[in-house]
Amino acid sequence: MKLSHRITNINGGGSDGWDVFLKARGMIAEGVAVTELTIGEHDIGTAAPILQEMHRSAMGGHTGYAMVPGINALRDTVAARVQARTGVPTTRDNVIITPGGQAALFAAHTAVCDSGDTALYVDPYYATYPGTIRAVGAVPQSVPALADNAFQPRAKDIAAAAEQGAASLLINSPNNPTGVVYSRDTLQGIADVCKAHDLWLISDEVYDTQVWDGEHISPRALPDMAERTLVVGSMSKSHAMTGSRCGWIVGPEEVIGNLVNLATNTTYGVPGYIQDAASFALNQGPEVEAEVAEPFRRRREKAMEVLAAQNTVTLVPAQGAMYLMLDIRATGQSGDDFANTLLDAHHIAVMPGESFGQAAAGHIRVAMTIDDDRFIAALKTLCAFAADLAKK
Amino acid sequence: MKLSHRITNINGGGSDGWDVFLKARGMIAEGVAVTELTIGEHDIGTAAPILQEMHRSAMGGHTGYAMVPGINALRDTVAARVQARTGVPTTRDNVIITPGGQAALFAAHTAVCDSGDTALYVDPYYATYPGTIRAVGAVPQSVPALADNAFQPRAKDIAAAAEQGAASLLINSPNNPTGVVYSRDTLQGIADVCKAHDLWLISDEVYDTQVWDGEHISPRALPDMAERTLVVGSMSKSHAMTGSRCGWIVGPEEVIGNLVNLATNTTYGVPGYIQDAASFALNQGPEVEAEVAEPFRRRREKAMEVLAAQNTVTLVPAQGAMYLMLDIRATGQSGDDFANTLLDAHHIAVMPGESFGQAAAGHIRVAMTIDDDRFIAALKTLCAFAADLAKK
Repeated sequence: MKLSHRITNINGGGSDGWDVFLKARGMIAEGVAVTELTIGEHDIGTAAPILQEMHRSAMGGHTGYAMVPGINALRDTVAARVQARTGVPTTRDNVIITPGGQAALFAAHTAVCDSGDTALYVDPYYATYPGTIRAVGAVPQSVPALADNAFQPRAKDIAAAAEQGAASLLINSPNNPTGVVYSRDTLQGIADVCKAHDLWLISDEVYDTQVWDGEHISPRALPDMAERTLVVGSMSKSHAMTGSRCGWIVGPEEVIGNLVNLATNTTYGVPGYIQDAASFALNQGPEVEAEVAEPFRRRREKAMEVLAAQNTVTLVPAQGAMYLMLDIRATGQSGDDFANTLLDAHHIAVMPGESFGQAAAGHIRVAMTIDDDRFIAALKTLCAFAADLAKK
Repeated sequence: MKLSHRITNINGGGSDGWDVFLKARGMIAEGVAVTELTIGEHDIGTAAPILQEMHRSAMGGHTGYAMVPGINALRDTVAARVQARTGVPTTRDNVIITPGGQAALFAAHTAVCDSGDTALYVDPYYATYPGTIRAVGAVPQSVPALADNAFQPRAKDIAAAAEQGAASLLINSPNNPTGVVYSRDTLQGIADVCKAHDLWLISDEVYDTQVWDGEHISPRALPDMAERTLVVGSMSKSHAMTGSRCGWIVGPEEVIGNLVNLATNTTYGVPGYIQDAASFALNQGPEVEAEVAEPFRRRREKAMEVLAAQNTVTLVPAQGAMYLMLDIRATGQSGDDFANTLLDAHHIAVMPGESFGQAAAGHIRVAMTIDDDRFIAALKTLCAFAADLAKK
């Protein structure tokens, strides 16, 4: 029986980049003690008060179909939060609640790309980006953000890609996998290209509460950009609610109206008790978010000390998000080879840069998602392993 | 800014069929006491033991990313349940958990339809069916199931539609909106057409625990059909968990594998604590499901007594699901006009048959989703209203 080209081609015919991750999972299943530094997930669960609010809502009867666009309280809370952070007037009519940030990425691309349209994205990229674009039936085309430019994409590279015709550009700042926060210059350059080439800008800002250096700027706040920008947000990273699958898109009212029609036919809303919990969590204020972000801030500081004490591994400036991107080219190995041999030799699992595109070749991504002592010990082992390789 | 044709065309350029429903909601918002018989939602919430299990799971730490295909316990439970009901060997590799039945319908069509492919569905239909097909980028084409044939679709009508080329056929039994349960003959005829024309069969069986007359037969259990059938199931109707958005697709392993890739790029799984609650609920056994179904069984019995006492309104044989389909053609009105005038005159909201396609013209759908006394009083008022119209 024939399946659709779209679904069978969703990984582009290649690996989906999770080989080392799956190998590590296999070792763990066999009882090997693996130090897991692959996944962007907190080493804490969702805070009890949030879960208690969820239970209160469910026991109170909020278990039936919720409004497809999202409940008013959560849409209002997200709108107020976005307006406070960006200064851009935002109401509930600019917000649709989605079952997670990934669903938001998919819906945003569905809104602006027809089958066969080109959708641009920046390499290095979060693992699902090209597959998300293929799932929509659009054609993913990457724009490199080079290591030599500290992984900030250049306007001229985006313009060159857009000149061949494209519907949209997907960016992510603070960035997964690089930990880079896009500068105002970078974002203004992106905005100029979007306006010149009539591109929709899909801005994935799910790490906006995890900024260690510099400031997070939402491109929706730049002049004339609100009308062509769809911002993707989520409860996952800011409130350690990864499993609850609660995210949103912020954009022009007309787009949100169309996205509600799409949601009616694709997801039919998000559990009301989860939305109540999310609304409660967001209204706890920034202290709670700072608390969730604190372990990553702290581990980054400690990691910088470890890395300053050696000369083989170079840290890409780690400005945000829960990752460190390490340049291991001095070892003479690819990121893939390094990650595989490190896993074999020391049972430490990291993601090869190549899993996130060619621009991150010769790098590895280290998630700061285990307790400080084990994290620092693993990083020291990694550095010593790299130094040995470099000597060979 | 240009949006995709796919999203702007999702309602086919026409009404989405919810006009009377929205008018009733507007009246309620203005303080009018409307008797709501429009929506397929229980008048009870999710049972407390299920919600307590959910809370136990969440507080126990099951708040991180769940496995994208679904947690093993729930996949195993669904597989065992399907196997017990159909006799078809089924394992977890035949099951993917989705964020609700609607997401399952969308994913199933994405798996088998490319952009521009024709996807067949039966009219009368559940309101989202054509929009779901359009959301995939496929072309919806309806096959009538005529009132004269008790809304059972005929193989020859499906074959005639399939002869022009189609990728799939979507059916729903027990049926929303008609309350009809497809007979073995109907399903065998459908199976024969699917095999003759190499169609995928997408079988929406979310009402499989609500059968009042006859038996539910899953077409996946018919000879040589397991390899070409994707069954959509859900916790919504069987366990009054509509808001929890937890459903599944059962199908061939290869399709499930591809659907997992799709889910990675579109939804990224279903909350683990909801899956734990669903698994718990399914393992409570059939008594719990019978209890959830009981109010509809009871109201149907009472409704049949009311309808037997008059001659204007004719009941389509109500074999399953939580609806009655009433033929009001003796009033000389369309379903649309009848529903609108009934709402204006008596503040009783029902769905016009036309909201579910042309085959249900001259009918109305009555949801049995309010308490018995109010339901029966509303039905009596409706019958008297119809009798008056018929006399004019």
